[in-house]
Amino acid sequence: MVNVAILGFGVVGSGVAEVLATNGEHIDHKVEDLIRLKYILDVKDFPDSPFADKVIHDFSIIENDPEVNIVVETIGGARVAREFTERALKAGKSVVTSNKELVAEHGYDLLKLAEEHGVSYLFEASVGGGIPIIRPLNQCLAANEITEICGILNGTTNYILTRMIRAGLSFAAALKEAQENGYAEQDPTADIEGHDACRKICILASLAFGRHVYPDQVPTQGITGVTLADVAYAESCGKKIKLLGRAIHRPDGRVCAFVAPHLVDLEDPLSGVEDVFNAITVRGNAIGDVMFYGRGAGKLPTASAVVADVIDAAKHMKTKKYLGWGPGGAEVAVPPAGVESVWYVRANAASDQVRAAFPGAVFLARPGAPEGECAFLTGTALTRGMLDQALCGLDCVCVFRVLD
Amino acid sequence: MVNVAILGFGVVGSGVAEVLATNGEHIDHKVEDLIRLKYILDVKDFPDSPFADKVIHDFSIIENDPEVNIVVETIGGARVAREFTERALKAGKSVVTSNKELVAEHGYDLLKLAEEHGVSYLFEASVGGGIPIIRPLNQCLAANEITEICGILNGTTNYILTRMIRAGLSFAAALKEAQENGYAEQDPTADIEGHDACRKICILASLAFGRHVYPDQVPTQGITGVTLADVAYAESCGKKIKLLGRAIHRPDGRVCAFVAPHLVDLEDPLSGVEDVFNAITVRGNAIGDVMFYGRGAGKLPTASAVVADVIDAAKHMKTKKYLGWGPGGAEVAVPPAGVESVWYVRANAASDQVRAAFPGAVFLARPGAPEGECAFLTGTALTRGMLDQALCGLDCVCVFRVLD
Repeated sequence: MVNVAILGFGVVGSGVAEVLATNGEHIDHKVEDLIRLKYILDVKDFPDSPFADKVIHDFSIIENDPEVNIVVETIGGARVAREFTERALKAGKSVVTSNKELVAEHGYDLLKLAEEHGVSYLFEASVGGGIPIIRPLNQCLAANEITEICGILNGTTNYILTRMIRAGLSFAAALKEAQENGYAEQDPTADIEGHDACRKICILASLAFGRHVYPDQVPTQGITGVTLADVAYAESCGKKIKLLGRAIHRPDGRVCAFVAPHLVDLEDPLSGVEDVFNAITVRGNAIGDVMFYGRGAGKLPTASAVVADVIDAAKHMKTKKYLGWGPGGAEVAVPPAGVESVWYVRANAASDQVRAAFPGAVFLARPGAPEGECAFLTGTALTRGMLDQALCGLDCVCVFRVLD
Repeated sequence: MVNVAILGFGVVGSGVAEVLATNGEHIDHKVEDLIRLKYILDVKDFPDSPFADKVIHDFSIIENDPEVNIVVETIGGARVAREFTERALKAGKSVVTSNKELVAEHGYDLLKLAEEHGVSYLFEASVGGGIPIIRPLNQCLAANEITEICGILNGTTNYILTRMIRAGLSFAAALKEAQENGYAEQDPTADIEGHDACRKICILASLAFGRHVYPDQVPTQGITGVTLADVAYAESCGKKIKLLGRAIHRPDGRVCAFVAPHLVDLEDPLSGVEDVFNAITVRGNAIGDVMFYGRGAGKLPTASAVVADVIDAAKHMKTKKYLGWGPGGAEVAVPPAGVESVWYVRANAASDQVRAAFPGAVFLARPGAPEGECAFLTGTALTRGMLDQALCGLDCVCVFRVLD
């Protein structure tokens, strides 16, 4: 018998209870043991829930119950969740989480703590919702030196961009629609400013490259600056605007990670990832590019990733399973200024001016462009510094990288 | 120290040696042990290879060397490969293979033999080349009841179809080009008749649904009957023709697996899978659809999947890792006759005739269609039996299912 406690009975936590109940027989068969949900910790009661009799309010009951083997942390945030995670690990319980903020901020410490106490800390659900990515990155691609990870990591922003591209909605209208459909929160900052994608690329970079990459080392630009003019210019050259999280392993061993809107060619499979779907491309030196695609959020998909970790932890009750990476530090990460790209530029400028500054510029057109607006792709790949130098003197409105 | 022997120094076998050498440091770090390539078994010598000193010709040297822990079988076929696999497993060595034919035909017996001898039999590389699919299906999606698997499982046929669609080449011309580019064998039968895809869907179905599904239980139709006329009609209704391997888990527990060309909507991510790429969509009751995408063949991608299994086997030297499924049998699989689809039909018939037989028919058009040719989609989903009944009396040239 393996006993599970869920911390936080919100969307994901209640999904975990539901998946454990619905697929219980199948799951017990997989584990070759019985998995039982023993406690649900929440500040609230849920008298109408079928799991009402499991709800408790005092974490120390879980902490002190030697029967509890696995703690599922679906509280979110980095404060209470961190305290309970540390206490659970110290009490010799494996912890499974969907909490990207906590893993991105404190993953190194928590993984070390888990190893010190001979238990597992697993976080498949923290990136890509239900999409299997953490385990494949760690195991299936183990034979490869990973050179780059690039993904559409946030469903909310991808939904907004999809609606701007397909339905011609403005950013504000698309955001409002996303909120009405439950795809965006009332305070959408973490999504639209790119913080959520930033946390996820930190986790992927840490796992793939072996040192903790912290969110404050990852320059992050959201989608609030994307306009329908940019969407139209992108379309005119066979591209779509997508918010990408990227992490590049440099030859010197350092990591360059960043989050920013990019123009993605229609030939690239990432361009076909629409609505709330996520996709993550991993480039390895042997395998080339592989892509993982699916629902990046949602109750049951995320819960299914949590439960897969619960199954894994349950199967490794005796021989523990350690994921992990080395400590972070200022030397681990470098800013993306040195990464060369072709750039998309929209400026208030005459084409002669642009041609003088960018001899290879490819000019773009859109219906209804106002007088004096000029959009183009730099003909050659440039670092940000080279771009800024060439832009000097031009009234530049916005620039985005073009994905290779 | 973990010692590895490679059986068969062809494309994949030499790729395995190359990946072990190139990424050796990284791999040893992953395993926390030293992985050493000790033997390469082949009938030929390779005097110019950097691995020439490891080449031997007598399998019993490997079989009787207690230092050899892991045998990599990249011989292919189901005869010699089967004998050596059985002997290696019986000698207490874990076996890693890329041999889809052997796993599809004898997987149940070999997995049982491995378990009896306390060793692993791993086959990530047998499906989807380098794409991680076996392990995610077994582990990451473990919380789900899998309801359907649907994939573009053969790179050769996908290349041919892509060239027909994009460049307007006939089937014969596209096949010739594929052969010239090394994407198709001189005898392309196994690919173009769907046998290769059939073996792969057998392996996926067996793993996902828990009973061995044999190739002779899987009705298989290749792409030799696909013409440019069909490509054009498909395009006219926003679809592409793709060769799909499908396995459906029926509510009664039985499996319906088949391989056939399908019309796939442009909105479906499978439609964007071009050239020699493969993609596999897995539908789970919690996760919804997830897709795995990458190079389905090729020396280094396939070798990288083999080496990932070698790493896994090396990490599980003491606590063995068992994959497996139950025995097959006539009761396990049912033919796809009962699966309802909308169908694409091309016939020599008048539209009145068609309208009488299929009241909801959606007629398709293409430039240059000869007099009397009539192509349409059945308006409603029909079983094959219902379709055949309605087609009775029409001079039908070809029918393909439309993917939901």
